[in-house]
Parts: sequence; C-alpha cells; structure tokens
Amino acid sequence: MDFSSKLLENAVHEMSQLPGIGKRTALRLVLHMLKQPERQTEELSNALLKLRSAVQFCENCHNISDTALCEICANPKRDSELVCVVEDIRDVMAIENTGQYRGLYHVLGGKISPIEGMGPQDLKIASLVDKVKKGTIKELIFALSSTMEGDTTNFYIFKQIEGFEVRTSTIARGIAVGDELEYADEVTLGRSILNRIPFEGSLNKN
Amino acid sequence: MDFSSKLLENAVHEMSQLPGIGKRTALRLVLHMLKQPERQTEELSNALLKLRSAVQFCENCHNISDTALCEICANPKRDSELVCVVEDIRDVMAIENTGQYRGLYHVLGGKISPIEGMGPQDLKIASLVDKVKKGTIKELIFALSSTMEGDTTNFYIFKQIEGFEVRTSTIARGIAVGDELEYADEVTLGRSILNRIPFEGSLNKN
Repeated sequence: MDFSSKLLENAVHEMSQLPGIGKRTALRLVLHMLKQPERQTEELSNALLKLRSAVQFCENCHNISDTALCEICANPKRDSELVCVVEDIRDVMAIENTGQYRGLYHVLGGKISPIEGMGPQDLKIASLVDKVKKGTIKELIFALSSTMEGDTTNFYIFKQIEGFEVRTSTIARGIAVGDELEYADEVTLGRSILNRIPFEGSLNKN
Repeated sequence: MDFSSKLLENAVHEMSQLPGIGKRTALRLVLHMLKQPERQTEELSNALLKLRSAVQFCENCHNISDTALCEICANPKRDSELVCVVEDIRDVMAIENTGQYRGLYHVLGGKISPIEGMGPQDLKIASLVDKVKKGTIKELIFALSSTMEGDTTNFYIFKQIEGFEVRTSTIARGIAVGDELEYADEVTLGRSILNRIPFEGSLNKN
C-alpha cells in the first residue's frame, strides 16, 4: 500500500502485527481512530501500556492478576483442596462464568506439543506437582482440551503425581445441552454413552 | 465476562471499542500482546499516540499527511490541472496503487447522506469550489462510489461549479478485468455496453 503519511504507515504496520489483523483491517481501524476524539486513542494506548507493565501472574495458580495472589486464590470461601488444571487464562474465565465451580485453578500456560516446541519444562507443571506433594490438594480436575496434546499433558501430569494421595478426575465429555443426537459426532456420542451417569444423579445437577 | 484483573478488563474494554472487534476478539488480541515482548505493545501504543497527535491533513487536498502540504500536492511532476474527487483517504491509496494517475486529489471526507446526518457543509466541498473558481483546474474526475449518496454528491458539486470553465468526467464503470460476463449484474453490464469505447482506444490503455 502507498501511504502518504509515515505516521499512518507506522501505525498500520504495528496494528497489523496482531493475530488475525491484516493490513487492510489495520488501516480501517487506524482511520476509525483518527475520526474519533483523541482521548479515545489515548485511553486505548494507555490501557495497553499499563496492562503490559503492571499486570502480574498469581504466584499460586499462575492466573492473570493485579496482585501477587489472584482474587480466586485469595478468597477464603473457595475450596483450596479442589484444583482444576487448565491450559490458559481464558479457560479460567469460561469456567468462572458458569458459576458452578468453587475450587481453585492451576493455569499451565499451554499444553505439551512437540510440534509447537512446547515441552513439560515450558509449562507450570513443576509447581503443580509441588503442590500435590505438599498434600494439601484432595482432588485434581483435568480440564484441558480434548486433543492429542491435551491428553498427553494430562497423562504426563498423572504420571508425575502417581503415588501421592490425590484423587484425579476429568471434566465430562458428551453431547452439549440442547444439542440433537443425530448431529453429534460419533466419538462424542460414543463417549457420552460409555460415561453415562445415574438418572437420579442428572436431576439434581441443575 | 469475569476478569480476574482490572487492568486486563480495561484493556479489553478499550480494544473492543474498535469497529468489528468484539469482546472475545479483544481478549484474544490483548492476551496475545501479553505473550509478546513488552517492546511490541509499546511500539503499537506509541505509534497510535504519535499518529493521533502529530498527523495533519493536507491544506490543499485534505489527504492525510505528515506535512502541511501532502507529498502528492507538493510533487511538481504531478499535473495540478487534473483533480480527482474522492470520498476518503483509502480511495487515494487505491488509485495511487494503480500507478495510472498523475494528477492531484481532493478528499471530500465522505458523501452527502441525510440518513447519516452528512450534509454538504460537513464535507470539503467549499474548498473544492473555491479551487475551481480560481480557474487553475482544467478537469475534475469524480471517483465517488456508485451509490445513491455518491451520485447525489457528484450532482451537488456539479451544480455548484456549473458555469465555470472546467471539464468534468467520472471514472468508467463496467465489467471488472478478468470477470466473466454471465456473472456480472445487469446494471453494470448494461452500463458497460452503453459506455462502450472504441476498440483501438482500449488497446493502448494497458
């Protein structure tokens, strides 16, 4: 593209570094900002700078936080004996949004994936194993994505904590609430039959 | 969404003010920035702030510029007697990218659209009429979009400069190069037949 302003070209270039934002979208966004009051661009830039410089990760669960210990870990009402292992911060938000979980989290920061060069040492696995060794956790819930990498990570952690007194579980996979059986994929439907639950049990869950 | 960090929430909120960026996309972009080196977020923020505070609009053609007179208007090799009237900055870029135009531009900053509350006084029409009145322009090329609003704007300007010595033209509408006739819409195909050009003329254009 042929920009008549170096400032514009630079802003578009920086914007197009973001994932999923091409040159054209970046230009559209930047030109939009030029039409808005200057204050709005300042607020965006300052919010990003402040986040990047001041944000912390919880020293216990590695969730994003404004303080050394995140709100969830610092909450005495949460069950600290129950820990849900997730890939990243977005999974914490997703589970928190359900309002169904009262335990703590442990954010791994990814999953074991040789293709992407992610090994166990790149994830927060050691600190999880340490917590288990201390004996304060009664149950670990694996809530990683149901892929080869997720399963590998689950299994790796499972092997590391073998022999310690901790229950392990994994979130239920099955047909989504409201979905029709005929459109479900076979693996999911197969699993949801194998892992069926007592009918009475399903009644008081919601 | 339930953010465990106010800083994150604020950054996501500001990001989602941009057009076409929802809360989820904003979160994805912001979390991506957190994984990148801090320098990258600084460069983006600074580029936006600098653009917003330092950018100017050319005093002659109203194109975006780093200087009082834009590169195009300041270029003595361009034909200053030929002026192409466009809606906004992106149209200038699009035409410049073709490498086929050696005249100057006049950026209106939109088109007359009562629905969007855009009247002639909101556009840079007065300065265009002034330029025509001075008699330095030989030809005005209307290159506005081919919509009701675009046509209205063309006609409004045309009426304002009636009686002054200036030729007016409009860019050719027709079947795009490489397109198949059978898939063209009837209006475009109809116009491209009505506005046919001599065959010899079409040969030396490209």
